[in-house]
Formats: sequence, C-alpha cells, structure tokens
Amino acid sequence: MDHRSRLKKFEQALIERELDGFVVTHPANLRYLCGYTGSNGLLLCLTSQRIFFTDRRYTQQAHEEVQGAQVVVTKGPLIKDAARRIGSLKPGTVGFETDYMTVAFTEEMRKLVPGKIEWKGTSGLVMRQRMIKDNEELRAITDAVKVGAAAYKDALSAVGSGVRESEVAGRLEYAARQAGADGMSFETIVAAGKRSALPHGRASNQPMPSRGFVVIDSGVILRGYCSDMTRTVHLGRVSREKDRWYKAVLEAQLAAIAAVAPGKTASEVDQAARQALRKYGLARYFTHSTGHGVGLEIHEPPRLAKSQLERLEPGMVITIEPGIYLPGRGGIRIEDMVVVTDRGAQVLTPVTKELVQV
Amino acid sequence: MDHRSRLKKFEQALIERELDGFVVTHPANLRYLCGYTGSNGLLLCLTSQRIFFTDRRYTQQAHEEVQGAQVVVTKGPLIKDAARRIGSLKPGTVGFETDYMTVAFTEEMRKLVPGKIEWKGTSGLVMRQRMIKDNEELRAITDAVKVGAAAYKDALSAVGSGVRESEVAGRLEYAARQAGADGMSFETIVAAGKRSALPHGRASNQPMPSRGFVVIDSGVILRGYCSDMTRTVHLGRVSREKDRWYKAVLEAQLAAIAAVAPGKTASEVDQAARQALRKYGLARYFTHSTGHGVGLEIHEPPRLAKSQLERLEPGMVITIEPGIYLPGRGGIRIEDMVVVTDRGAQVLTPVTKELVQV
Repeated sequence: MDHRSRLKKFEQALIERELDGFVVTHPANLRYLCGYTGSNGLLLCLTSQRIFFTDRRYTQQAHEEVQGAQVVVTKGPLIKDAARRIGSLKPGTVGFETDYMTVAFTEEMRKLVPGKIEWKGTSGLVMRQRMIKDNEELRAITDAVKVGAAAYKDALSAVGSGVRESEVAGRLEYAARQAGADGMSFETIVAAGKRSALPHGRASNQPMPSRGFVVIDSGVILRGYCSDMTRTVHLGRVSREKDRWYKAVLEAQLAAIAAVAPGKTASEVDQAARQALRKYGLARYFTHSTGHGVGLEIHEPPRLAKSQLERLEPGMVITIEPGIYLPGRGGIRIEDMVVVTDRGAQVLTPVTKELVQV
Repeated sequence: MDHRSRLKKFEQALIERELDGFVVTHPANLRYLCGYTGSNGLLLCLTSQRIFFTDRRYTQQAHEEVQGAQVVVTKGPLIKDAARRIGSLKPGTVGFETDYMTVAFTEEMRKLVPGKIEWKGTSGLVMRQRMIKDNEELRAITDAVKVGAAAYKDALSAVGSGVRESEVAGRLEYAARQAGADGMSFETIVAAGKRSALPHGRASNQPMPSRGFVVIDSGVILRGYCSDMTRTVHLGRVSREKDRWYKAVLEAQLAAIAAVAPGKTASEVDQAARQALRKYGLARYFTHSTGHGVGLEIHEPPRLAKSQLERLEPGMVITIEPGIYLPGRGGIRIEDMVVVTDRGAQVLTPVTKELVQV
C-alpha cells in the first residue's frame, strides 16, 4: 500500500484546515496512514516531521511496518512522549479525532501539553479519505470477499436439521483460516428457525430445527480488509408464504443495488429497498438500515439509511443488505458487497441469491 | 447473573459521589450491569428509574436479556431519546465514563441536554466494581479457561515443522467453537522460530521451521467471559542455552504467582518476575508488563506493571505472563490465569508448564 501518498494527501487536508499538527490513535487510521497493524500506537503529524510512537512490545513490528514516519519506542504512556514533541512546537493548533478519542485521553493530552498549543477536535478527517478506496484497497477487498464467499459455501454443506448453529459457524471460520484469513471481521451470525428473526443472532449452541430459515451473516479479514455477506437458506420445503417473503427481500436487495450510482444519496438507495418491500406489505419488518461502508473496518461510512444525505462516489465500497424479521416466525436477510463505479454498482459477492432449500 | 444486585451496588456508588444520574454506553459495562449483550445500547440510571435504550435491531434481544431496567427501543440515535429523559429531571448532576466516551459523543450529549443539568466525567466507577468477580463470574471464567485449555491441547497436536502457523490457529479456534465458545477473546498468536521474538506475533501463513520456539497465546469467550493463556513449546531438540532461557521464564512466572496475595501491590508481583529474570541476566528482554485483569474483557485492571500501586484483593482474576524476546533468535512466554484468594493465588489454567519438545 502507498502510505506515503496517503500521508501527503492527509497533510494537505491539515493545511486546508490551518492545523499545525495532528494526533492519530485510532488503529484503523494508523494502519491506513502508515501501515502499522499493532494495538498501541500514536502518529503525530507535524509540518516538518512525522513521528510514530509505540511501546516495547511492538519495537520490531513497528520498524518493519511503519512507512513515512520516524519510529519512537517509549517506555511510559505514548501521549507523554508525544506531548514533549508537541510542546517543543511554536505556538499553534493541533488537531485530534473527536470520533475516537476518549474524554480521558484528551484531558491527559491537555494536561501534558503547554498552554501555547491550541487543541482542535475534528471529525472524519481520515475517514473521509478512507471512504474512497484506491486500487490496491479494492484488490484487497475483492480478495477478502472471495475468501469469505468460499468459507460460506463450505459451511453451507454443514447446515442441516439437528446440527448446532455453532458447528456451522465453526466450520465457516475454520475454512476462512485455511484460505488465509487473519480472522473474522465480526462474530459470525448463524440464526435458524425462530432465531432467524433476531437480526443479530450470534451462532448459539442450539440445534437447528427441521424447518425454517437460516440466516448466515459472516465476514473475514484478509490483509487487514474486511468482507461481509449474508445469505438466508431454508431447512426443509419452504411454504408459499415464506417463499413470497424471500422474493420480497431479494427484490428489495436488487432494487437497492440498481439504485447505486455516483451522485445518488445514501438515503435514495435505502428508499429503493424500502419501496420494494412496501409493495409486499413487509416494509415495517425491515428494522435496520440498508447498508454501510466496509474497508479496514467492518462498519465505515457511508451509512445507507433514511436520514443520510451523503452522496455516493466511485471507489466507495458498501454493503446492500435489506432484511425482514417477523418475531416468532423467522427472518431473512440478503447481503452483498458492492463497489460504486463510474456508472453504477459492481457486485463483488460471488454467491447465488436464489433460495437454497437444504 | 444477579444484575439487580450489581445495579444496586453501582447506584450506591453514585449516591456517594452525589450524582443524580449516570449514562453507561460501554458494551462490557452494559453487559455487567444489566445483562445486555448487543452492540448498541445506553443505560440511563436515574434516582427513581433505570432506562435501557437500544435500536430496532435489538428489540427482541433487549427484552429477553435486560434485567432491572425498562427497555426503550428508539428510532434515531440513542442519546437523543436519553437526552429527553435527562432533560425532564430536576436540576442536577449526571455522570458519564471518561475512559470510554468519545469527545464527539459527549459534545452531542451536552448539546441535546438543557443547561440545568451538569455533566461530570468519572473514571473506573463500573470497572472498579467489575474488578472483584462474584461467584457466578468465577464459575464462568473457570469454564472459559477450561475450554481455552482444551482447545490449546487440541491445537498442540497440529504443531510441527512445515505446518503453517495459521493452520495451528485455525485448529485451536475450531476446537474452541466445538467446545461451545462464543468466539475468541483476541486474535490468536502462533509465532514460531524467529517470529517467536515478536511478543504480538499473530499467526501468519508461514510454515514453521524445523527448530525453534513456538509461542501460542490464545483465549476464548464463553458466556461472555474471556480466557487467556500462553504456552511456549520447542520444535526439535532444545539447545542448552535455550533450555536455560525457558527455565528462567518459568522461574519468573512461578515467582510472580508466589507473590500474589491480598494487600500486595500489582508492582510487587511484577517485580518478583523481573527479579527472577535478573538472576539469569535476561531481565532486559522482558519488554512488557507481567499481567492484567481478565473478565468480560480481555484487558481489565489491575495492570501488573512497575508503576502500578493498586493493591490486590480476593476475587480479582489476573494473568501472570512474563516473557523474554531476543530479536532474531526467539522468544518465550508462559501465561496462566490466576484468582486472588484470601490467602494467595489459585491457578486456573490446567496445562503443564514443563517444556514440551515436538
């Protein structure tokens, strides 16, 4: 990944905002800007230099990974050493990320740094840059989606009446590992029968019933990038009513994908899914948003929801995942990952959406 | 779990601090206080009532899980509804957690709630209570440690020259799932040969060499509670020098365990490990702290490090995990989970610490 270009672009944004320095601590932002993948790090961007601070557990790792910044390994809290550097600046304004920094951390920062430095909270400065994926990122994400899809297909062969949900999840996660995944991007959801009506039904130790929907929502992390997909299959023969539910959700998902294009708002895509469900009288069971951005984190902007007026741009990677949940009866969700292209949407997830009955 | 008693005890702490209300959003604190296991929730404790806010994805789950508080399902951001309730209070002071709340969230809170309410940042109020585990928690943790140990033993049989580190990690994670784990408490570390000198060497796709140490550090989540253990084994025959290194780390680990007792400071336990390594001239390669608390989260207080004057108390659950890391040569870490008892320490991890050569 070309971290030096990212840092330069980021620093351009700092200049535009008249910031003389910036403190980054959020792990995904650190990884994006300078390549560091450990858990404890602080990147200080100053006009004349960039310094990356970490502790002694990460000495070797930081020297191997960090690009475009000098690595400093400290003994105490990172902010202590960073404060000393900031304190040696001329009077000026230093920015930090209000979306990630805790109140305790900023209080510590203010205490340690002399008064001539003014602190300025900013929101989404790194994230806005991360939202548009570059070609290397798109390749990494496409690879992650492929590994995630292969793991899903492997797990699908384990689905059956009497099998525990956790067995299916375990199978999926093992297959992902075998295919080179670093891990899972969130707790695998396998929710069968009545449990499929729980939008976030983490795989339990319950055996699956002889009939009903099974929602499988999973994602892997590959080279740092996340995948996310959901398919809903049916145990036993599906009734006409439930087949109609499935068709409605699939129609909603396809309508939302068709609505994706540069310049469209996130809200418009969300509305396209809702509109399709409305025709079936099922819109009130769609109780979450239509999707979200994905990248180094599993949930990134843009959020595809009613109130979101963010406009789509080429290079954004989003999920399209409408679902319906009928308490006590069952639920369905269908989710793909999609790249916003110059002309519309490119679906990444290579798995059929026809209803599979097992 | 007896959430109502926990809430009552917590509210006693609020009264002592003259707080008329409190906002909790940190997931582990929500789970501890009221049993909720989802990702988006806000617990508002007021003198006369407790209200738990969540969004529509969690309607059913919140009603099933939340104890001791009224459940309110909101359409917009949780803080919006919560602010309305807080605004209806008489003038007073409402606390929040500076260790978890972001600057952006508190800014939103202050903006939404009328000026008659004063906000007060607090640190560690819930955590201090969580630090001392009750009997139900000790049972859950002991079970998690057992499942983690069984998974480790299963994975150990896969360790061998030429096998990829990720294969061992995958095996371990699959065994954990099979035994009922909800998932892993952190990214599994399998670091062989030179990579064992990386204290945080996540399992890579590299094949293990024919000779050298293999550090395996892993933990599971069972019923919400985390386990954490590390063993270091040796591929091929160990040299006399490396055998001496191993003995040094084991001695340090046993010395630290022997130093655990109520009233002792965290620093004293840390020093016991360092002292043992000093005798071998290896103390400078011990580049992290000796341990940390474990519970609903993998890293909780107390932190067993040099500067930490926190005193141990019965009911605390901590890791004891000294290690040494010689860049380019290899590393060793040995880690158990330990309960602080009335008289000393009870080791939970049921796995031999003799050096295993495979």
